[in-house]
Amino acid sequence: VIHPKIVRNIPRADLEQIRRLGECGVATVHEAMGRVGLLDAGIRPIFPGARVAGSAVTVICGPGDNLMIHAAVSVVRPGDVLVVTTFSPSNAGMFGELLGESSRAHGVAGLVIDAAVRDTAELTAMGFPVWSRAIWAQGTTKAIAGSVNVPIVCAGAGVHPGDVIVGDADGVVVIPRAEAPAAVAAAEERVAKEARTRERLRAGELGLDIYGLREILAKEDVSWED
Amino acid sequence: VIHPKIVRNIPRADLEQIRRLGECGVATVHEAMGRVGLLDAGIRPIFPGARVAGSAVTVICGPGDNLMIHAAVSVVRPGDVLVVTTFSPSNAGMFGELLGESSRAHGVAGLVIDAAVRDTAELTAMGFPVWSRAIWAQGTTKAIAGSVNVPIVCAGAGVHPGDVIVGDADGVVVIPRAEAPAAVAAAEERVAKEARTRERLRAGELGLDIYGLREILAKEDVSWED
Amino acid sequence: VIHPKIVRNIPRADLEQIRRLGECGVATVHEAMGRVGLLDAGIRPIFPGARVAGSAVTVICGPGDNLMIHAAVSVVRPGDVLVVTTFSPSNAGMFGELLGESSRAHGVAGLVIDAAVRDTAELTAMGFPVWSRAIWAQGTTKAIAGSVNVPIVCAGAGVHPGDVIVGDADGVVVIPRAEAPAAVAAAEERVAKEARTRERLRAGELGLDIYGLREILAKEDVSWED
Amino acid sequence: VIHPKIVRNIPRADLEQIRRLGECGVATVHEAMGRVGLLDAGIRPIFPGARVAGSAVTVICGPGDNLMIHAAVSVVRPGDVLVVTTFSPSNAGMFGELLGESSRAHGVAGLVIDAAVRDTAELTAMGFPVWSRAIWAQGTTKAIAGSVNVPIVCAGAGVHPGDVIVGDADGVVVIPRAEAPAAVAAAEERVAKEARTRERLRAGELGLDIYGLREILAKEDVSWED
Amino acid sequence: VIHPKIVRNIPRADLEQIRRLGECGVATVHEAMGRVGLLDAGIRPIFPGARVAGSAVTVICGPGDNLMIHAAVSVVRPGDVLVVTTFSPSNAGMFGELLGESSRAHGVAGLVIDAAVRDTAELTAMGFPVWSRAIWAQGTTKAIAGSVNVPIVCAGAGVHPGDVIVGDADGVVVIPRAEAPAAVAAAEERVAKEARTRERLRAGELGLDIYGLREILAKEDVSWED
Amino acid sequence: VIHPKIVRNIPRADLEQIRRLGECGVATVHEAMGRVGLLDAGIRPIFPGARVAGSAVTVICGPGDNLMIHAAVSVVRPGDVLVVTTFSPSNAGMFGELLGESSRAHGVAGLVIDAAVRDTAELTAMGFPVWSRAIWAQGTTKAIAGSVNVPIVCAGAGVHPGDVIVGDADGVVVIPRAEAPAAVAAAEERVAKEARTRERLRAGELGLDIYGLREILAKEDVSWED
Repeated sequence: VIHPKIVRNIPRADLEQIRRLGECGVATVHEAMGRVGLLDAGIRPIFPGARVAGSAVTVICGPGDNLMIHAAVSVVRPGDVLVVTTFSPSNAGMFGELLGESSRAHGVAGLVIDAAVRDTAELTAMGFPVWSRAIWAQGTTKAIAGSVNVPIVCAGAGVHPGDVIVGDADGVVVIPRAEAPAAVAAAEERVAKEARTRERLRAGELGLDIYGLREILAKEDVSWED
Repeated sequence: VIHPKIVRNIPRADLEQIRRLGECGVATVHEAMGRVGLLDAGIRPIFPGARVAGSAVTVICGPGDNLMIHAAVSVVRPGDVLVVTTFSPSNAGMFGELLGESSRAHGVAGLVIDAAVRDTAELTAMGFPVWSRAIWAQGTTKAIAGSVNVPIVCAGAGVHPGDVIVGDADGVVVIPRAEAPAAVAAAEERVAKEARTRERLRAGELGLDIYGLREILAKEDVSWED
Repeated sequence: VIHPKIVRNIPRADLEQIRRLGECGVATVHEAMGRVGLLDAGIRPIFPGARVAGSAVTVICGPGDNLMIHAAVSVVRPGDVLVVTTFSPSNAGMFGELLGESSRAHGVAGLVIDAAVRDTAELTAMGFPVWSRAIWAQGTTKAIAGSVNVPIVCAGAGVHPGDVIVGDADGVVVIPRAEAPAAVAAAEERVAKEARTRERLRAGELGLDIYGLREILAKEDVSWED
Repeated sequence: VIHPKIVRNIPRADLEQIRRLGECGVATVHEAMGRVGLLDAGIRPIFPGARVAGSAVTVICGPGDNLMIHAAVSVVRPGDVLVVTTFSPSNAGMFGELLGESSRAHGVAGLVIDAAVRDTAELTAMGFPVWSRAIWAQGTTKAIAGSVNVPIVCAGAGVHPGDVIVGDADGVVVIPRAEAPAAVAAAEERVAKEARTRERLRAGELGLDIYGLREILAKEDVSWED
Repeated sequence: VIHPKIVRNIPRADLEQIRRLGECGVATVHEAMGRVGLLDAGIRPIFPGARVAGSAVTVICGPGDNLMIHAAVSVVRPGDVLVVTTFSPSNAGMFGELLGESSRAHGVAGLVIDAAVRDTAELTAMGFPVWSRAIWAQGTTKAIAGSVNVPIVCAGAGVHPGDVIVGDADGVVVIPRAEAPAAVAAAEERVAKEARTRERLRAGELGLDIYGLREILAKEDVSWED
Repeated sequence: VIHPKIVRNIPRADLEQIRRLGECGVATVHEAMGRVGLLDAGIRPIFPGARVAGSAVTVICGPGDNLMIHAAVSVVRPGDVLVVTTFSPSNAGMFGELLGESSRAHGVAGLVIDAAVRDTAELTAMGFPVWSRAIWAQGTTKAIAGSVNVPIVCAGAGVHPGDVIVGDADGVVVIPRAEAPAAVAAAEERVAKEARTRERLRAGELGLDIYGLREILAKEDVSWED
């Protein structure tokens, strides 16, 4: 019923919107969208300070097989982010230095993968940002059919080709392409609001007062004792 | 049978004792107390070099809800360490930059939480030490009743309000307040003893000889072969 | 049927071969050997940049007991790598600063352990490379019989005394001693081949073309769409 | 950007097709569809012999909160299967005997939940089939907004309202509603084909010969030795 | 600072209260107490239908060592439940058929252990109820000092000697001894109330109406769509 | 360096010895051998009461690929046990009803696999004993080279072709072929000894007295209090 395929052309979000979402960061964008779209907490950056924002080129591979990542590199455009999952769970090292060099040569901005990567010292030296479930040298085959640029589920989040991907120290969030403009607006509004809140908190005001939490405590019958 | 409450005033250990326990470090204090009091190994610092020692302000929250952390900030004193757990397991990002700013404004020395934190780049830049089970952007509610400064179990260890908390690269240990003086004495004695042992080991003496282990090997019928 | 023992003398691989395997790195050596010999992905270095290559001195301990590590230090030779496992799983901190000092005094090049280590700030400051399953302060006994320099299974890989151990950011690989010469040859050939491939990928050639993957995609009925 | 909502009416697949998919079973349907659509392996039946097939009524809840499950019961039709996930991971016991009674009263055929359930002795006695990630008594709130009958990701699989859900001893598979007719045809063809293969295997023929695997072994250079 | 000890005599709750708590079951008692006191979800019964209620005799052992369980059997009284944890995590099989026979001979009603058990076929045949984290044959030593009848943390819950332990299919809950009377009253009130709710739900009334949830949905801005 | 191969003929242990080891059971054999040889605790039987004893035919497969299991069925002899692992971890359902029928047709006594199995209702109905890490419907390829009857590591235990495998409710143990006679003798001696101990324990004697543990408690400074 499902036939594997590689889709060459996908719609992408506006570059300026992508840039602005990246500046807002994962936690803010996720909150602004209504607390949805996060990949699970097991997906971690391979080096401190890794950040990325770009359009998703989606990839679904066989477990321990990176054939379709090579196929994906043939259809990327500069600024894209590879988002890779597997049919069944794998922690093989499906992406390493050579794929990193190839990805960079074609302008790939980063990688998000629900599997392992390897050659992480070299990828770190290249400054190529990667979010993965594990770091492991285990090698892979290049033999199993899969698809590129079809809708996937990666680490618990649904991702369509061309969705916006933002990654930083707190994880990875996906913004559906059609919601990118609204997400930018909501996220930047939140940034502005948080700046004001930050000043009040720094001055010693309590979150209890700023957010009106004392009445919630009262309503929930939480007592105060000395 | 249990009613949620916020206790404003708690006894605290002597500041000088707290400082000295912090200098001894987690492994030494844990050993000195008879190998008890450690939080489990899943609780890790969010940046290398994080260290803390302070009095526990305990917090128990609903899963994915940080209402009670805000309440706790209203009762802390400078030097306190927030120790947070949840009714049922959660890996939501219950603490971020804004709570970090608020905590710092009230003198909180650090955070230990059996859940996730977010805005870790900003918390790291602030030098605010945190030990958590995960790092994740997932947002939280501010709606569920819980308690502040009641006895809790956090990551497998029992913690009473005012107990001494020491955290470093090797994890987090809790010292019951009443045992702090004895723990300081035992830990510092251990530090001194280890200094002597270190010199002997550096000079090439074997642990087998220093600790009298050859006779244990003999008693356990471990044979030596060439 | 099994009697615990400590074997003093073991055969070791050629030092120059060990050095060359270390330079090739874990991922390359593992690939060159036919994708075998990796310890599992849970075994991670305690600091970035850790690297080691040496001869395995194998140790099997009781859970939460480091008696046999002390015994092992008495039979090491400079350049050896301690490879430690336990009878039943343990995440106690079986190795810390003092054992690190003792190991260094006897020339031990590093440690691989399917358990936890502690005093990691100190071990990092010493530059003593360690790969472990966890970092935790939990203390240990020195009371349970085990063996040194017998064949063991460590983190899913079979290790014989004198096998070559290579560790880096991507994990740890074991090379059977008798296969070291062939592994050096195969790994260095792979390094040379990868250097050529790297240049082609950097120039923008696709893995699809370099590795002949287009015909695999065709054979597997993967379709291309626009 | 996301607003919580409860959708009352959803399209459903043909009942006879649902019944036939249920008879084919999870493994066969999953294979027939091209090896897609499985929920992850952590989702297990609470009693042996549990089987279900029905239309998905999707539910997304706050962690440890079952408000939206109660909402969902108000929109189900006989034969539906509740498919429940949470915003952030939870292993609270979000469904128990009372919700089981209520669900049964409204004709719900079963429950699939990426969280825990409780009162499992009573649910088992009722013969109410449940697939969950855990069994645990932990209680829940009824306070957090979520949605019913919107697209969700549950245990790694995308589920739309009205998709067909099949569950048995091997797990749970989701069949997109539009693909149900093709899936029935492909699955029943597979059942027939497997019946013929089964007879040949029972008679002692080898899979190597039936599936033409000897030539794959040869092509992959697998040697035969005595 | 901590010295291992065996306490012979402990206070126990009233037998009739223990019996009534056991009849209410784990989920009900846990709810009645304010949703506290559960051991974590990884603690599971070794056979379906296992149920127990009794007074806790607490045991803390070395990892993979059951010396202190033998000590505990010497101080139990008929109807007690052994509650066992370890200093550092262990999944060794610390309790088997022989300890089961010995426990039964002294009237022990059951076992709760944050480790593994073995001889589970025999223990099941004996009808000796056990809740454990794992089932595994791994053997243990009888050599490491620990304590009996001191306060412990077992699987995330604080347990004092003489607390009431209730276990069933949904897990294990601990009721502080002093709270047993109030817990009985609250739990039985809850049972009665649930019986009335059950009838209404069976008759088709909705939880939305019975629990007044429609107004919570409205307050949280959850919209209804057709 | 490693070339995949299928070895047709392997030495096997004496059938009577295998039978007697099976009767002693996993825990007893493991103890009798000196507490070695267990597969890890994650390997569980798919139905209660599963028991097996036989000669290991070892199989190493690609992740999510069962080509080599088909190859293995072509070299088994009646009474053999298939012991299957993968190059890199996989929880795909690599073995199901059809392979079960084929295995049975060739006399295979059971399966031990560090991966998942499916069609577990049918395998249970057949009474075909299986120990696996998971139960999951996920399908597999038949395309990746591996080996049959070479030494492997399966679930943490080294297994050579022809070693004796014993499985029951407590897990799986491997007995090196050459040690089978000694293991039989030691295990049966242990069974006899345990029978005598069982009688004493049933009569109320304490393990403290039977095993001489009171002096260990004294030596370890464990105090007795009232």
